[in-house]
Amino acid sequence: MQVNKTYNGADALCATLLANGVDVCFTNPGTSEMHFVAALDREEDMRCVLGTFEGVVTGAADGYARMADKPAATLLHLGPGLANGLANLHNARRAGTPIINVVGDHATYHLPYDAPLTSDIESLARPMSASVRRVRDSGDVSQATAEAIGSSRQNGGQIATLILPADAAWSPASTVVHHAPTPAASVNEKAVQLAADALRNGKKTIIIAGGKALRDEPLRLGSRIANATGARVLAEGAITRMERGQGRVMADRVPYAVDLALDKLREAEQLILVDAVAPVAFFAYPEKPSRLTPPGCEIITLAQPGDDIVGALRALADAVAANQAAPSLAGSADCPQLPVEGWDAPKIMQAVATLLPEGAIVCDEAITAGRLNFALMAGSAPHDYLQLTGGAIGVGIPLATGAAIARPDRKVVALQADGSGMYTMQGLWTQARENLDVLTVIFANRRYAILYNELKMMGVETPGNNARRMLDLDSPPFDWVSMGKAAGVESARAENLATFIDLFRAGLSRRGPFLIEAWL
Amino acid sequence: MQVNKTYNGADALCATLLANGVDVCFTNPGTSEMHFVAALDREEDMRCVLGTFEGVVTGAADGYARMADKPAATLLHLGPGLANGLANLHNARRAGTPIINVVGDHATYHLPYDAPLTSDIESLARPMSASVRRVRDSGDVSQATAEAIGSSRQNGGQIATLILPADAAWSPASTVVHHAPTPAASVNEKAVQLAADALRNGKKTIIIAGGKALRDEPLRLGSRIANATGARVLAEGAITRMERGQGRVMADRVPYAVDLALDKLREAEQLILVDAVAPVAFFAYPEKPSRLTPPGCEIITLAQPGDDIVGALRALADAVAANQAAPSLAGSADCPQLPVEGWDAPKIMQAVATLLPEGAIVCDEAITAGRLNFALMAGSAPHDYLQLTGGAIGVGIPLATGAAIARPDRKVVALQADGSGMYTMQGLWTQARENLDVLTVIFANRRYAILYNELKMMGVETPGNNARRMLDLDSPPFDWVSMGKAAGVESARAENLATFIDLFRAGLSRRGPFLIEAWL
Repeated sequence: MQVNKTYNGADALCATLLANGVDVCFTNPGTSEMHFVAALDREEDMRCVLGTFEGVVTGAADGYARMADKPAATLLHLGPGLANGLANLHNARRAGTPIINVVGDHATYHLPYDAPLTSDIESLARPMSASVRRVRDSGDVSQATAEAIGSSRQNGGQIATLILPADAAWSPASTVVHHAPTPAASVNEKAVQLAADALRNGKKTIIIAGGKALRDEPLRLGSRIANATGARVLAEGAITRMERGQGRVMADRVPYAVDLALDKLREAEQLILVDAVAPVAFFAYPEKPSRLTPPGCEIITLAQPGDDIVGALRALADAVAANQAAPSLAGSADCPQLPVEGWDAPKIMQAVATLLPEGAIVCDEAITAGRLNFALMAGSAPHDYLQLTGGAIGVGIPLATGAAIARPDRKVVALQADGSGMYTMQGLWTQARENLDVLTVIFANRRYAILYNELKMMGVETPGNNARRMLDLDSPPFDWVSMGKAAGVESARAENLATFIDLFRAGLSRRGPFLIEAWL
Repeated sequence: MQVNKTYNGADALCATLLANGVDVCFTNPGTSEMHFVAALDREEDMRCVLGTFEGVVTGAADGYARMADKPAATLLHLGPGLANGLANLHNARRAGTPIINVVGDHATYHLPYDAPLTSDIESLARPMSASVRRVRDSGDVSQATAEAIGSSRQNGGQIATLILPADAAWSPASTVVHHAPTPAASVNEKAVQLAADALRNGKKTIIIAGGKALRDEPLRLGSRIANATGARVLAEGAITRMERGQGRVMADRVPYAVDLALDKLREAEQLILVDAVAPVAFFAYPEKPSRLTPPGCEIITLAQPGDDIVGALRALADAVAANQAAPSLAGSADCPQLPVEGWDAPKIMQAVATLLPEGAIVCDEAITAGRLNFALMAGSAPHDYLQLTGGAIGVGIPLATGAAIARPDRKVVALQADGSGMYTMQGLWTQARENLDVLTVIFANRRYAILYNELKMMGVETPGNNARRMLDLDSPPFDWVSMGKAAGVESARAENLATFIDLFRAGLSRRGPFLIEAWL
């Protein structure tokens, strides 16, 4: 790019991001962001990844940050562009993912004219952001950007939204670049003591591990502690990223279904939370409790998001003399056999679990069809497991997209329900554009199956016309092979197990995006 | 449906909507809305239309209400479901469209537990809603619903958002149904007098007509007034719904491009606004003004949204003795000839303008490719013209979907840019599901062409790698024929004018959705 060489606010933004290690920007720009686009164009160190819908942009930023352990930036076009990305920012917020949103806005002096694209960006941003900051002018850009990056690093990972008026982007700026502090993680010694006391008091104890406590090292520590003291380790219900599979700790998860969760936690007299929150029901139901722990169950928080999770667990292991205890690891015997017959979602997952390659990154938004995914993959080859965290469907395809950008050396396996997949299928195009190594399995049951279950729980056995027309996706069936083709992703349909296994193996053996529609 | 016969809050909501004439509900429900789904299932008079993404739901509600002249309801799933629909609610707000959003939320007592899908729905809703009301309990449902319907009817059409906690839906309710008032529209006599005085003072005057002033009758009155007094009539820049074509008033539109708009308004000494706002630049640019009227131009508001528009124009016509003046109507000579050669967006539009059938509803989101659409269709067969109003791209396919639901007796012609179309292409599935009579033309230029123009205006003639990767949609090209097939919509590609004309004629001659990818 040969013109507009004056260093401006947009350049300051770019430079501040790069100086703080933020070198990937997921974008869908518009006119008010063109000066930032021009600045990005001058910065070859910044990798810009286009999503053709903002739900892809923010979901990919989530997947990227979960796997890169550092934030990505997003570039969004005013209030509506941010709005389109909010559902996946909601998921990212629940995942504790660091993201810096750059939301372009009109030039400051233009706002009073209430031009058509004007809206209250702050009001839209706040529910899904830990911090929202409007840049004052071009002189404020670097400081504001550093603050946003700093905010994104707080509490283990947060959403920071930066509103960039067009005139702050296009006006001349100083080349001074601000740096964001990295918060120091510490161990809460008092909490360690309380947890150690609890583990020795003879009461039935469950250790709930969430967030960064689901990585290999903290899980091993947790498992040693549990085995030394008679406690049990459970992963929280919605998993940001868990390192699991053979040679890794085998731990169950708090179930989604209220009755199953109540049952799983029924005997707990005390809970020790490690980067997790006390489990509550995903939804309320008449006559069912909101809190999933039994009445009187004591809750002890060993470590909160942003604390030194491994440090806290080490201190606790020392305190309860757990360092010699063996962790409970998954072995090859925990992996199912390759199935040879049958054709349903669990059989498909059994095949996936058996064939999953070492180092795979699994992005799971299979919803109802995937109820057994987590259990079936406990003994798969070692892998990372990422999940829908906030219940806002449509994260799967973008999550896989971002994870693949973060880790081009690893195979991403996306397990995707069809109804949720239809929310953000534009992400397949980004996978093709960037030639990402993502193998997607669509569980095509052609209905919002989870909602049929919910209706059943309400006692409705035979839904009528209006209900069926809101819950069925079958007339016409959405054709995912054509969808993949539309987006430039090689795609094929499996209608039986043998074909599925052949296609899955084919998908594993090649590099680049591939989609299998498992027609249930 | 054979169970759950107790009349509950969800039934009260349904009954109140129907009693107030709201009998179409665009939906994407979730668990927290299942009692409302069950209630809808018991009400055969309510037509439920599923969108497989909420941007489709809200955009279709907009298209429906623009053509039905009454509100639709939407059913959205908590904060994230609403968030997904906000961009098209933004457009609907700018269009002055009446919509009643029913946003399900957790049971009231469940909210303090901060379950994963909890978010600040009010903060999300407010920027795009004229009113936001949380239902207190099941006894409050009918009153709150009537208030929302009433709010949606204010000021000519507004967005009313109703937050429905799950327990308010499932708890028993009274069968008393509340009715919403219809606001009385009045004529501002003082404004009529001011406008009449202005039209007689010899200054150069432009009458800007927007909102409901763009229907046939008010436009004729406006044109008579203009012709009797030497004024000029212009349509506002973003058109909610304009009745135009042969036998209708021929009026130009305030251009989108700032320089063209400044030029068009340069000589105006006074503006008379009829259900319109004074024109401002869509975006700010360095060294260009925000206000498009010349300095010192006087602004007179004859009628505001919600006023008696026709009454005000009649009174003005009487006051300036314009009733005998002839309006300026389009005739067959204003329609272009069917082109016989060439292949670019204007040629395609020339063909569309020539072949457009009487009574067509044109939904235009062709953006850069459609710059000449409005002018070329001035002399087409009489039709309604609907446009992207708020600048939040992704309204076209949903708008056409909703318009077709409102007017099954008329052909809907959707003129769609490819980049914007990728935002809400799920709407094609709804067109197939409901067998809607929509003929879609995709202007596939495989780039965000408007942004290339913007870069050029910044002096960037040769964008670099990062800019091109944010503005191009060409590697791989998105394949709309496969996309249509995925959604169950018969689709075909045209790469030359003869094929396009054949396909367009074929699309007109059949009923049901049909898509033509015009490969530019």
